[in-house]
Amino acid sequence: MKWPTHGANPHYLYEAMNLPVPIETLDFSANINPLGPPPLLKENWGQLFESVIEYPDPHGTNLKRKIAKREGLHESQVLLGNGGAEIISLIGRLLAGKQSVIVQPAFSEYEEACKANGCQVEYHQLPANWAWTGEDLSDKLQQADALFLCNPNNPTGSYYQKSIILHLLEECRRNQCLLIVDEAFYDFLAEYESITPYINEYPNLLIIRSMTKMFAIPGLRLGYLLADPAVIRKIAPFQPHWSTNAIALKAGEWCIESESYIIETIALIQQERQRLFRFYQKRNLLVSPSRINFYLLRDPSLIDQYPFMQNLLTSGIIPRHTVNFPGLEGRWLRFAVKGPEANDKLMGAVEEWLDSRL
Amino acid sequence: MKWPTHGANPHYLYEAMNLPVPIETLDFSANINPLGPPPLLKENWGQLFESVIEYPDPHGTNLKRKIAKREGLHESQVLLGNGGAEIISLIGRLLAGKQSVIVQPAFSEYEEACKANGCQVEYHQLPANWAWTGEDLSDKLQQADALFLCNPNNPTGSYYQKSIILHLLEECRRNQCLLIVDEAFYDFLAEYESITPYINEYPNLLIIRSMTKMFAIPGLRLGYLLADPAVIRKIAPFQPHWSTNAIALKAGEWCIESESYIIETIALIQQERQRLFRFYQKRNLLVSPSRINFYLLRDPSLIDQYPFMQNLLTSGIIPRHTVNFPGLEGRWLRFAVKGPEANDKLMGAVEEWLDSRL
Repeated sequence: MKWPTHGANPHYLYEAMNLPVPIETLDFSANINPLGPPPLLKENWGQLFESVIEYPDPHGTNLKRKIAKREGLHESQVLLGNGGAEIISLIGRLLAGKQSVIVQPAFSEYEEACKANGCQVEYHQLPANWAWTGEDLSDKLQQADALFLCNPNNPTGSYYQKSIILHLLEECRRNQCLLIVDEAFYDFLAEYESITPYINEYPNLLIIRSMTKMFAIPGLRLGYLLADPAVIRKIAPFQPHWSTNAIALKAGEWCIESESYIIETIALIQQERQRLFRFYQKRNLLVSPSRINFYLLRDPSLIDQYPFMQNLLTSGIIPRHTVNFPGLEGRWLRFAVKGPEANDKLMGAVEEWLDSRL
Repeated sequence: MKWPTHGANPHYLYEAMNLPVPIETLDFSANINPLGPPPLLKENWGQLFESVIEYPDPHGTNLKRKIAKREGLHESQVLLGNGGAEIISLIGRLLAGKQSVIVQPAFSEYEEACKANGCQVEYHQLPANWAWTGEDLSDKLQQADALFLCNPNNPTGSYYQKSIILHLLEECRRNQCLLIVDEAFYDFLAEYESITPYINEYPNLLIIRSMTKMFAIPGLRLGYLLADPAVIRKIAPFQPHWSTNAIALKAGEWCIESESYIIETIALIQQERQRLFRFYQKRNLLVSPSRINFYLLRDPSLIDQYPFMQNLLTSGIIPRHTVNFPGLEGRWLRFAVKGPEANDKLMGAVEEWLDSRL
């Protein structure tokens, strides 16, 4: 079977599994804010039509300035991109012919980008329950040119706190190795501790950010890299001209100022995640120690969760398979935390699945 | 002086020339359809908001199918991209470490893409008045892995007819060399003869298309490559995931069906270009033999057109400088053909410039 490599676009998953798409579906496979885009974006959507007709600012100066200001960095430490995926792809070019270590399980694009550039990849598998202090890497880092870490982690939702990142950063520096931290979901984390100031101190630190998850704009594509100006100067020539479209640039400016919307989102996600987790616990299902807007779920009576997934898909509930996450290989399913109504439906469908197994 | 590398975003040009931006400006430096986007796009803009919230189809299947059908090709011969610029950038990767010949003057991104990938670049300079039969290339092609030709040509607007392209295609095949034809402006040409069927016969033919000029959607970014499936399979892994955004994909589907809009555009452009050219002739100014929606203009009393450009910019009329076009080096200015009112203003400003020189 040819599994889709990512969540979202669920018709490809139904197609792969040879299942008909039900009339009503709920997509839990894409981890985007259940509140949708910030109200300002919806209100001003009409006005964005003007940006269709103009070439995007190839430097994205206005948005770049706002990001730099928010992070306490200089503009030269920011590179905008056509989604986090483009940033990862550009980093891949920096690693052409080199060696990297990926902390697994992780977003699959790091490996794709490395492979597309002839960069050798080694895995560092996280320990049981993904509890990790950043140890056990010394040997692997000796040969490595880059270490990829997704934090908070996709697909588990675990978070490795600042002290762990600083330990890794030191270790990487000692080994002349880049530390690439993908913070695509950092803004869903109530207790996030910023590591961006360390860019001034550690030219080997690269931070990938995405604006498509918190602001529910995956269709627009918008992400950025925070790094030493020397890294950005190396990467920028690989980027196509006008890579970030004009709608994303403008929308990004509105999104970045939506502070109260972020706070509201975090509160909703926390409340719903707790509600879901209480339900799963009661029904003896296992979850990953997520602190953000998605989590892994597992029916312990099964090893491969395929029948569970098949059952949910038939009811129109769409999980993310984990077949292509090294260390998971289909033994878990990933779900986004959505709004109360959608989560109720998910719990109902899970309930039905469990009842059918009695 | 640090000249902007492209037209559009004129504040960068004013900045470079240390001139204040007038309150009213008319931008002739970007070659987009003066009618604006097709009416269908404006009417349905509200509805496109839904596409913001969903991940783009990473394969862009619906649009790809429509393009393939329109061109009489198979889906596997089409690759969608984040603007023509991304397609050029991806072709650059194919040419890593190789040698290419660029027919000059031409769009500057071919050279940028080659250089970013360590591909050596040689120029083939077009003869006087850009009249060319495709001859004089045999020697250069012996060493080359790829030949870039922009047709219709940007910045001159000249068109090299099918028989010339077929001659080049044969010559390139004999030399095991790719022929990369950038047809970004093909749809402005009333007398265009399609070369796409030759993709079935010549695996060395790559055709770059842009949808942002005819459909006036440069802010959205949308382009595609037509080529042999083997070429597309080689290039696709270099492309970031979800590279073409969801708004562009959806808009593209509407645009591609706007046949009558294309006909209307061509008629308007022809009429206005003729009107402008009659005026320039009467005032003894020189123009390039353009058959599309932009042209080169030159005041023969000057070699470098800098004072002319400075004068126009001060009046709010924005030309495209030609400093970075090999073979032009500032001795011409490029202008888009806009609507009647804008063209009247341009002619008025040119009139004033000429009068001031008496």
